Amino acid sequence: MKRLNSLMLAGAVVAAPSMALAQDAPAAVPTDVVFILNSLLFLIGGFLVFFMAAGFAMLEAGLVRSKNVAMQLTKNMALFSLAAIFYYLIGYNLMYPLGDWAVEGYLSGLFGPGVLEAVGVTADAADDYGYASTGSDFFFQLMFCAATASIVSGAVAERIKLWPFLIFVVVLTSIIYPIQASWSWGGGFLGEVIGFSDFAGSTIVHSVGGWAALMGCLILGPRIGKYKDGRVNPMPGSNLALATLGTFILWLGWFGFNGGSQLAMGSVGDVADVSRIFSNTNAAAAGGAVAALILTQLLYKKPDLTMILNGALAGLVSITAEPLAPSLGGSTLIGMVGGVIVVLTVPMLDKFKIDDVVGAIPVHLFAGIFGTLVVPLSNSDASFGAQIQSIVIVGVFVIVTSGITWLILKGIFGIRVSEEDEINGLDVSELGMEAYPEFSKG
Amino acid sequence: MKRLNSLMLAGAVVAAPSMALAQDAPAAVPTDVVFILNSLLFLIGGFLVFFMAAGFAMLEAGLVRSKNVAMQLTKNMALFSLAAIFYYLIGYNLMYPLGDWAVEGYLSGLFGPGVLEAVGVTADAADDYGYASTGSDFFFQLMFCAATASIVSGAVAERIKLWPFLIFVVVLTSIIYPIQASWSWGGGFLGEVIGFSDFAGSTIVHSVGGWAALMGCLILGPRIGKYKDGRVNPMPGSNLALATLGTFILWLGWFGFNGGSQLAMGSVGDVADVSRIFSNTNAAAAGGAVAALILTQLLYKKPDLTMILNGALAGLVSITAEPLAPSLGGSTLIGMVGGVIVVLTVPMLDKFKIDDVVGAIPVHLFAGIFGTLVVPLSNSDASFGAQIQSIVIVGVFVIVTSGITWLILKGIFGIRVSEEDEINGLDVSELGMEAYPEFSKG
Amino acid sequence: MKRLNSLMLAGAVVAAPSMALAQDAPAAVPTDVVFILNSLLFLIGGFLVFFMAAGFAMLEAGLVRSKNVAMQLTKNMALFSLAAIFYYLIGYNLMYPLGDWAVEGYLSGLFGPGVLEAVGVTADAADDYGYASTGSDFFFQLMFCAATASIVSGAVAERIKLWPFLIFVVVLTSIIYPIQASWSWGGGFLGEVIGFSDFAGSTIVHSVGGWAALMGCLILGPRIGKYKDGRVNPMPGSNLALATLGTFILWLGWFGFNGGSQLAMGSVGDVADVSRIFSNTNAAAAGGAVAALILTQLLYKKPDLTMILNGALAGLVSITAEPLAPSLGGSTLIGMVGGVIVVLTVPMLDKFKIDDVVGAIPVHLFAGIFGTLVVPLSNSDASFGAQIQSIVIVGVFVIVTSGITWLILKGIFGIRVSEEDEINGLDVSELGMEAYPEFSKG
Repeated sequence: MKRLNSLMLAGAVVAAPSMALAQDAPAAVPTDVVFILNSLLFLIGGFLVFFMAAGFAMLEAGLVRSKNVAMQLTKNMALFSLAAIFYYLIGYNLMYPLGDWAVEGYLSGLFGPGVLEAVGVTADAADDYGYASTGSDFFFQLMFCAATASIVSGAVAERIKLWPFLIFVVVLTSIIYPIQASWSWGGGFLGEVIGFSDFAGSTIVHSVGGWAALMGCLILGPRIGKYKDGRVNPMPGSNLALATLGTFILWLGWFGFNGGSQLAMGSVGDVADVSRIFSNTNAAAAGGAVAALILTQLLYKKPDLTMILNGALAGLVSITAEPLAPSLGGSTLIGMVGGVIVVLTVPMLDKFKIDDVVGAIPVHLFAGIFGTLVVPLSNSDASFGAQIQSIVIVGVFVIVTSGITWLILKGIFGIRVSEEDEINGLDVSELGMEAYPEFSKG
Repeated sequence: MKRLNSLMLAGAVVAAPSMALAQDAPAAVPTDVVFILNSLLFLIGGFLVFFMAAGFAMLEAGLVRSKNVAMQLTKNMALFSLAAIFYYLIGYNLMYPLGDWAVEGYLSGLFGPGVLEAVGVTADAADDYGYASTGSDFFFQLMFCAATASIVSGAVAERIKLWPFLIFVVVLTSIIYPIQASWSWGGGFLGEVIGFSDFAGSTIVHSVGGWAALMGCLILGPRIGKYKDGRVNPMPGSNLALATLGTFILWLGWFGFNGGSQLAMGSVGDVADVSRIFSNTNAAAAGGAVAALILTQLLYKKPDLTMILNGALAGLVSITAEPLAPSLGGSTLIGMVGGVIVVLTVPMLDKFKIDDVVGAIPVHLFAGIFGTLVVPLSNSDASFGAQIQSIVIVGVFVIVTSGITWLILKGIFGIRVSEEDEINGLDVSELGMEAYPEFSKG
Repeated sequence: MKRLNSLMLAGAVVAAPSMALAQDAPAAVPTDVVFILNSLLFLIGGFLVFFMAAGFAMLEAGLVRSKNVAMQLTKNMALFSLAAIFYYLIGYNLMYPLGDWAVEGYLSGLFGPGVLEAVGVTADAADDYGYASTGSDFFFQLMFCAATASIVSGAVAERIKLWPFLIFVVVLTSIIYPIQASWSWGGGFLGEVIGFSDFAGSTIVHSVGGWAALMGCLILGPRIGKYKDGRVNPMPGSNLALATLGTFILWLGWFGFNGGSQLAMGSVGDVADVSRIFSNTNAAAAGGAVAALILTQLLYKKPDLTMILNGALAGLVSITAEPLAPSLGGSTLIGMVGGVIVVLTVPMLDKFKIDDVVGAIPVHLFAGIFGTLVVPLSNSDASFGAQIQSIVIVGVFVIVTSGITWLILKGIFGIRVSEEDEINGLDVSELGMEAYPEFSKG
């Protein structure tokens, strides 16, 4: 496909009357069209981020051992569904406590469920709902909340009990995530007073999932046999094809994650910004993958596929706090640092006997912090002080609230399966079914 | 990403000149833009529904035994391709017999092939084609027809001969589906006289596939060994990771399925409605999955992953007849009932020795009927009488036509593979290849 | 979903005030909206084509033997990432040497990196960038370049060393692809002087990947044991479910590949053309799959799933040179011929002992040439002379440049793993990890 340019366009006018018409047309975007395009951005962004749930499911199913695959799939399907229900019931209104969009009947109260605008609103009525449809906004925001929960499930895999984990997901998605998100995105003090800058959520989404995962791993303890006699026992994932597929799906979804966070597509400037974000997001992922490829080759003489996958994801997390301002080269470099962080910190966690099955903590927490810290280098509206303060405030909040939640769950139900069940695998013991019942184990 | 609101927008005007311009701009959407946005909705909806073909393929490949996986994949690839060809050759014009959009050369006759508008139509000429491009409409409609055929393939898996199945697909997609769809969506008597209300096809798509699957299962009989000595022999799927992936892909595609069925995105009201539909569709899927999760835990003391997957799908089918009118809470409840239906009716089918390999009949037929029946609760334009009448009329038509088709195929070719071939697996016997040739069977 | 028509629209006006408004509105598309919609087409097209990287990865991972799966996944992840970096660093500006869109700071020089427009451009400034945002154009173009490299990786699988392959990818994506693409799409002599017509790249993308793959296969030689004692040893793929998934993903991505190549969606004519392209692309894929299904049944008495998959892909490649002009029926036929080509040429390559592991050369090179040759049948602006000349010129260029590159790499590093490593599988020997470590081999 030829790239059109002004010269060609001039020539094309003769052949394409509709273009000629367009040139007689006024330049400005009608306000109804702005509303439509903004809503469309949320819908497209939202379905892309939705698909990340499949990406997490495949990544995690590929990185656990085959005896735990069906359970990991069950957890992913259930956590997304519970997130959808509880973000609707509690989280959404909790995240936007000021209710700026409130019209009669919209805000059903601070702890009330989300309510969309009526069917078939007219353009006038829509004015009350702001610059995009409430339904599209809810759809988009929900997917971010669910992604936070997906981050946790991989880290605590292969040993956590199903139901306590799902209760944790309910607390995370209805209370912990929305409260801290409201501080930055709901008109709260991090955004308004401290001046925190986190475009699409390196801290607000990814580090929150990462902190919750870290607390889970600490309180759960490592898998049986992972650390033995001072040595780290590798427990390779059962299906790297699925893990790679999951990574590609996450990469795809991230265009919606970061691009949709521009929140507007109804002007030339906004669509050009969304385009920058798509390109930068891709560059950072590529940078992260290549950095992990080269670094594992140098360190271990052999490239490590799981590190490359996590490197790409760390690149994506790193660019998420500011996917707009950097240049393509800057984005590639930011992603590369993310990839390096993963390669260096995965063994570090093992040193502390923190058993993160899929590498979620390096990818989402460490790269999330890095991505947040690096914002002021490209965005002059952000300051290092505000970034550090905000990382700490969000971190302390999630450490405390998720830690307490894990401990309460541990006290009441116990969060860890029995030793026998863990050795037999959660699929047989907790589900009574296997993911691959016919393939004999080597 | 902060949620913009009117307050912020006011502040933003200073910084963003293009927005200031937008506020001077007229509000209304130019008619050419309406045409473009409507067509775009069909294109986006269409490619999402297309991807459901992959979702069905993965779901079914994951739920059959490994000795039949390659054949199940072959059937899915072939059925979609044949549906595309025969819906073009016959089905499309049969479904819209009134040819309201007809311009010279458009309608090639009742049994003629579909014809798109010419290349590079001008805006004036486009007026003749209605409110969206014929190409986008054809693309979107085709995907619904193909989905109907995909529903059948899973139910009759593991024992049906390839070619008779494919001939059935041709009859279904060129004749059976289009004729009954024309009654509701092509200006026919169900829509115009009886007042049937089926927004995106709980009955018109899903129950049609479900009835055809039921007739196929009845005429084929159960797999060898499935029902023996009064007991039901579980035959677990060979790859639950693929089945889960398929479910997530179907869930994703459903946003296009239901959202695109709004048929318009060129006004504030329409895009707000599409947004409602996305959110409600997601809520119903989540409700279905959670209901199946809880119910299988209560009934069997262990959650059942395949039930959770089918619960999500049943939630999606249930909301499909009316994804616009219900509230988020109502949609969640509708989805939950769908999930309950699946959990309760899967064993019921087994009692009648109807061997539906993937649960297509509970998901698409039973939840489809439920979803159609429940429409009047949220949409006052629909009546229970019209819904019941239409369900029965469509049901009888498909039972008779698909039953006759299956019986004719049985009479002429036989539709069931030999006992030996079934025991050896269709992959080796009918294809001479295996899906997983290197993995030894346990 | 009912199909609206003008009659219904007339009736709907009463109920839908926003539509009434729309009818009072001017028809023409405001120029800013044109810019937004064009950019949006690139973004949607771009993320769909991005996803083809996952499609290639799954297709190839499914068609290699399990001992080489992890390596094939590594190559796919790495090649896409390197393509992203080097197309940015060198390829993008090399492909558009005339810099028609050049504004101050845009064109960083012939061998300089790509530079996007600034953050938050105003509508006025955007005029300098042409008819769509540079970011969206870069994003879209990059994906085409990466696809070219993906084509190569499958053909040379199971025996090539990782790093020499990746260096080849760098040369291909930064030099070979962009230079020849500039001849057609960058204002060069193939497009401007010879009048070459290749809408979305049957020759410029697919045959380029195919020629590079062919040279690689010739210089590498076949896998050990593939051709022995005058017989062809089948080496079946390890996971046909993944291969089928990959094919469906590629099919999905092709809507973006061909549809996005319309390059504009801001007028009635353009969106109608994009719609035609979507429908035609789908028709050709279906035709290719069905032709391969029928032909393998006739030739071998059993359908061949891998041929059906490659048939669909060959149908897609065949329609890529001209997905707009043909009718639906014509597109189906073009796709069918593509499917026939694959079925007939796969054994032909084996006769010449050219070992193309996944069938990339028949699909992308042979069907690519066919698709390019057939353009003048439907598009009167194209001539057979120009098509043949261009195929030859591009072919000779890629044969020479890629051949030299392969030979240099062979001379310096060697491009083939040791016999022992090949027999043990690249996963263990080059990566030290396995894709499916727990599944015992049969």
